Amino acid sequence: MATKVRNIVPLLDRVLVQRIKAQEKTSSGILIPEKAQEALNEGYVVAVGKGALNKDGAHIAPQVNVGDKVLLPAYGGSNVKVNGEEYFLFRDSELLAKVTEE
Amino acid sequence: MATKVRNIVPLLDRVLVQRIKAQEKTSSGILIPEKAQEALNEGYVVAVGKGALNKDGAHIAPQVNVGDKVLLPAYGGSNVKVNGEEYFLFRDSELLAKVTEE
Amino acid sequence: MATKVRNIVPLLDRVLVQRIKAQEKTSSGILIPEKAQEALNEGYVVAVGKGALNKDGAHIAPQVNVGDKVLLPAYGGSNVKVNGEEYFLFRDSELLAKVTEE
Amino acid sequence: MATKVRNIVPLLDRVLVQRIKAQEKTSSGILIPEKAQEALNEGYVVAVGKGALNKDGAHIAPQVNVGDKVLLPAYGGSNVKVNGEEYFLFRDSELLAKVTEE
Amino acid sequence: MATKVRNIVPLLDRVLVQRIKAQEKTSSGILIPEKAQEALNEGYVVAVGKGALNKDGAHIAPQVNVGDKVLLPAYGGSNVKVNGEEYFLFRDSELLAKVTEE
Amino acid sequence: MATKVRNIVPLLDRVLVQRIKAQEKTSSGILIPEKAQEALNEGYVVAVGKGALNKDGAHIAPQVNVGDKVLLPAYGGSNVKVNGEEYFLFRDSELLAKVTEE
Amino acid sequence: MATKVRNIVPLLDRVLVQRIKAQEKTSSGILIPEKAQEALNEGYVVAVGKGALNKDGAHIAPQVNVGDKVLLPAYGGSNVKVNGEEYFLFRDSELLAKVTEE
Repeated sequence: MATKVRNIVPLLDRVLVQRIKAQEKTSSGILIPEKAQEALNEGYVVAVGKGALNKDGAHIAPQVNVGDKVLLPAYGGSNVKVNGEEYFLFRDSELLAKVTEE
Repeated sequence: MATKVRNIVPLLDRVLVQRIKAQEKTSSGILIPEKAQEALNEGYVVAVGKGALNKDGAHIAPQVNVGDKVLLPAYGGSNVKVNGEEYFLFRDSELLAKVTEE
Repeated sequence: MATKVRNIVPLLDRVLVQRIKAQEKTSSGILIPEKAQEALNEGYVVAVGKGALNKDGAHIAPQVNVGDKVLLPAYGGSNVKVNGEEYFLFRDSELLAKVTEE
Repeated sequence: MATKVRNIVPLLDRVLVQRIKAQEKTSSGILIPEKAQEALNEGYVVAVGKGALNKDGAHIAPQVNVGDKVLLPAYGGSNVKVNGEEYFLFRDSELLAKVTEE
Repeated sequence: MATKVRNIVPLLDRVLVQRIKAQEKTSSGILIPEKAQEALNEGYVVAVGKGALNKDGAHIAPQVNVGDKVLLPAYGGSNVKVNGEEYFLFRDSELLAKVTEE
Repeated sequence: MATKVRNIVPLLDRVLVQRIKAQEKTSSGILIPEKAQEALNEGYVVAVGKGALNKDGAHIAPQVNVGDKVLLPAYGGSNVKVNGEEYFLFRDSELLAKVTEE
Repeated sequence: MATKVRNIVPLLDRVLVQRIKAQEKTSSGILIPEKAQEALNEGYVVAVGKGALNKDGAHIAPQVNVGDKVLLPAYGGSNVKVNGEEYFLFRDSELLAKVTEE
């Protein structure tokens, strides 16, 4: 049975993120060659762990929620493949910013 | 007497993991040459230590249980051979995520 | 929909900064070639996170506010692009000094 | 007077371990050349220190006892020679797992 | 409007220092070539931050005051240019010693 | 006046150790050339500091006493010469084990 | 006005030390060439800071006093020149031992 992304439960303060893919076509529909596609450091939060443990053994609530759009650091994170799709696990404190939609 | 895996008791926050082997045949039964087999960073928890010590000397309960399917980090872990089988000891906090079966 | 800078909410003790661009012309209007433009380590605070967490889980109030002019360290910070404009995310404690206007 | 192993009292959280030697003959008695002998990361605990100090100055009881069979990390440990025999001093927290006999 | 040094407010435990320039002439008035001028690790404190935060969130009072003459470490510090003059920002704890005038 | 070893008072958790010299002759009296002499990681404790400071400013009593025979780590320690004799200063916690005489 | 050594007030846990110069002549008065002079890791304490801060903001009393003869580590320390004389600033905890005179 293939692993589904909804079955992945990040541990501690880890956050599962799906990186937003770079635009493959211009707005007028012309295909952008792969090399010219800009790597995007934005993603959507797909799953959130319970949080790191404080010294009393309680979980510290993470700063983000499922569905949040976030800015990702240029380095770090563990990439995992689920059904051929690539996802990233970051620690909550590594995420740079939330992006709110108006 | 050969060491059996059920005789291994991880110390502190260590977790004994059996890595899931990469598929050696395609779904239609054709043998995949070893180089083309994708390394899988998934495994099953075989044994769990009592947990790291907090500053009061009590064990911090680990985040995983025997039988859990887990995502493993790309680096780290100590490999041990038990009866010719390879296992890995990770610290509880190094495991990335649990994979739940539906 | 393009991300707008007012939609970026820095996480924890991160501060979003717009670096002040180096002068492109001399005071008499002569264009300064790009190589001769001095890199400026000054910027304006555009957005401020709630602050890092102390050990009781409360946010530590950052030292700067939106609109503050700040001196930036020569190294560090994550650069992010928003609508083609470059911004920088620094941790509050990395900012060197505030610059007050008289 | 030569130092005897029973005279060695490990300090703090150090544990004196005698590494189990690799098999020098096959089960049918044929000699295995030294290079083909597999290095074993197993040993027996020969002596145990009182434990590291917690912040109140009390010893933290080690996780292993004299006579325990343990899995050793691939790196680390200080080797000491006692009467020509090689022993290893590990910190209690470096030992990977206990191996229980059935 | 040009930044003036009196407008710079160091953040946290940072201290703004103006390094004392090496002597450019001998006592008899002969010009010393720049290479022969000895770099001086002394300076005057120009501005002082409120101090680093302790774990209760209060500022720890810095060890120096504006006007103090101080010995500077050989390495470290961030240099900033204000109106073409070079200044240095050190952390309070990096300063080696105060120099009192008799 | 030459410094005498009994005049050296180690500071904090430092321990002054005289390394036991390797045997220069075989038991039958034949001289062992210097290169064949095995370096010994054993020594006698010659002086002991009051101990490192705990967070309340009290000294933590060291684990060894003057006259103790100790096993030394392969690396670390500061060597000092007193009257042409070489001694070593280790931190109390760097010493591996005590060797008790029967 | 030239800085005098009695005007230097070390900050926090820093200690100003004057290194004892190596002997320049043999006891019979023959000059020792500079290369043959042995570097001495001994010095006299010339000034002592108030001590590092503990977490309550109080100074931790240093382990040495002005006039103490001390053993210096082979590495570390900041050298400062006062009136052409070289001095060294060490942190109190870097000093290895006091040397008492009989």
